[in-house]
Amino acid sequence: MTDTSILARGRYINLKIRDDWEFASRKHESGVAVIIAVTSDNELLLVEQFRVPVNTAVIELPAGLIGDEEACKNETPEQAAERELLEETGYRAECLKLVLRCPTTAGLSDEIAMFFIAGGLQQINAGGGDETESIVVHKVPVTEADTWLDRQMSGGKMVDPKIYTALYFLKNDIG
Amino acid sequence: MTDTSILARGRYINLKIRDDWEFASRKHESGVAVIIAVTSDNELLLVEQFRVPVNTAVIELPAGLIGDEEACKNETPEQAAERELLEETGYRAECLKLVLRCPTTAGLSDEIAMFFIAGGLQQINAGGGDETESIVVHKVPVTEADTWLDRQMSGGKMVDPKIYTALYFLKNDIG
Repeated sequence: MTDTSILARGRYINLKIRDDWEFASRKHESGVAVIIAVTSDNELLLVEQFRVPVNTAVIELPAGLIGDEEACKNETPEQAAERELLEETGYRAECLKLVLRCPTTAGLSDEIAMFFIAGGLQQINAGGGDETESIVVHKVPVTEADTWLDRQMSGGKMVDPKIYTALYFLKNDIG
Repeated sequence: MTDTSILARGRYINLKIRDDWEFASRKHESGVAVIIAVTSDNELLLVEQFRVPVNTAVIELPAGLIGDEEACKNETPEQAAERELLEETGYRAECLKLVLRCPTTAGLSDEIAMFFIAGGLQQINAGGGDETESIVVHKVPVTEADTWLDRQMSGGKMVDPKIYTALYFLKNDIG
């Protein structure tokens, strides 16, 4: 691999270049933990938050940056998944299994996502994210997810395509 | 929406900020067309290329920026999908149906993807991308896609999670 240059430094994101290819790179993270969590009532846990870059409320899988905060900078991806699931949805997972490690936008950034399937969910609190976040939790019956997601989009919200990745994994029992 | 500032200008990507949220923004595009294309032999068309940001060969759906080139800067998303499918895979589609419009990484960039399902495929040439690209085309039986993708990852390649989104759509006959 040839040298990487930093074209510009933001507070959270750097703009880098390597082999004449520009890309965005988060400064303080080693990946994103994405959690596929289904309750004992067969409901998929989804989160909704306003996303500044696309200026719209977006429905997503619970997710968060690994080692993003000072207090947990040495956490493992599994620990990040457990922490983010609890912070965002209020559910604690008994076990987490890594089912996919992949780039999120391989042409635009070096971000890597790790998808975990959560098992043994137990509700601890109402979730909603940390003090900087304003997250709405949705519990969507897996069997009705398609129509529910369509309805959200008809209402002007956006849907992260990784949710369909999760639904495929659940349907195929991958993991 | 409050004002957006440009923190840094690259040749292809700008680093922007709005409401104290930094994000990456491509300069010359109005979205990404992503194509779900299955041949008459029930094979999903996938492309493989080395992706500089993740320094790895990545398996993806055929895709490309809408209006990215001077010669086609006023093209519609459908036209971009048709053009990119032909350029990358060598297949021409008789029809293209938009099945999903969504952000790719709503926390990190303002990039919007449009997923099209292609119909009436006809092979015109061998594909492989334009003169700046080096793309390998894979035709993967839809029924064997899971194991094929697993094999690619075991061999050190990466897989774009949008492929599983496509497989979910195909399985559920969405569109």
